[in-house]
Amino acid sequence: MSFLADTPQGHYYSVIFSSVRSADDGDGYGATAERMVELAREQPGFLGVESVRDADGNGITVSYWDSLESIHRWGANAEHRLAQAEGRARWYESYRLRVCRVEGERRHGRGG
Amino acid sequence: MSFLADTPQGHYYSVIFSSVRSADDGDGYGATAERMVELAREQPGFLGVESVRDADGNGITVSYWDSLESIHRWGANAEHRLAQAEGRARWYESYRLRVCRVEGERRHGRGG
Repeated sequence: MSFLADTPQGHYYSVIFSSVRSADDGDGYGATAERMVELAREQPGFLGVESVRDADGNGITVSYWDSLESIHRWGANAEHRLAQAEGRARWYESYRLRVCRVEGERRHGRGG
Repeated sequence: MSFLADTPQGHYYSVIFSSVRSADDGDGYGATAERMVELAREQPGFLGVESVRDADGNGITVSYWDSLESIHRWGANAEHRLAQAEGRARWYESYRLRVCRVEGERRHGRGG
């Protein structure tokens, strides 16, 4: 599977999650992060995801969705909400979550 | 300086640049990448930038802008256009560049 998400022509939405991990790693972060990507893929309206974290603990995950409704439904998912609470309490020193409307896309090379 | 961009209240715009580096590193990539961030910071309407690349060569850089006009002006900057051409020819196996309107933001912890 390519790193780049194979998003559709026309308008869609993105959630940019930029985060700084806590110095204390905490148990379960990796497994929960993987589980959340797996769970997101099963949600209605999910279009793709791109995620990077570097050795300093800085990360950006961008998920793509067909509508704001799909994003809100995913944000309210019960298992996801438990993970969000644990993230704030233990795993993330700080984060910014930005919901965006994608207005246009340019491509170079293969992906998807 | 924090990893997280200290973006304003209300609407603004983002450019999500997701890329896969070429296997052959090529000279000058690091210096040019740094120079482009420095140059972007000098542009009218620039609000901030967040950037991560992992050891596999996958990267996401998100820059934030006050308007689509500022984004288009930056895209057309002469020095930036030379770097874009070199990036396509030598440094990036593939990329996606998505221009977005930020509709809302949620914060946890400090940043900016």
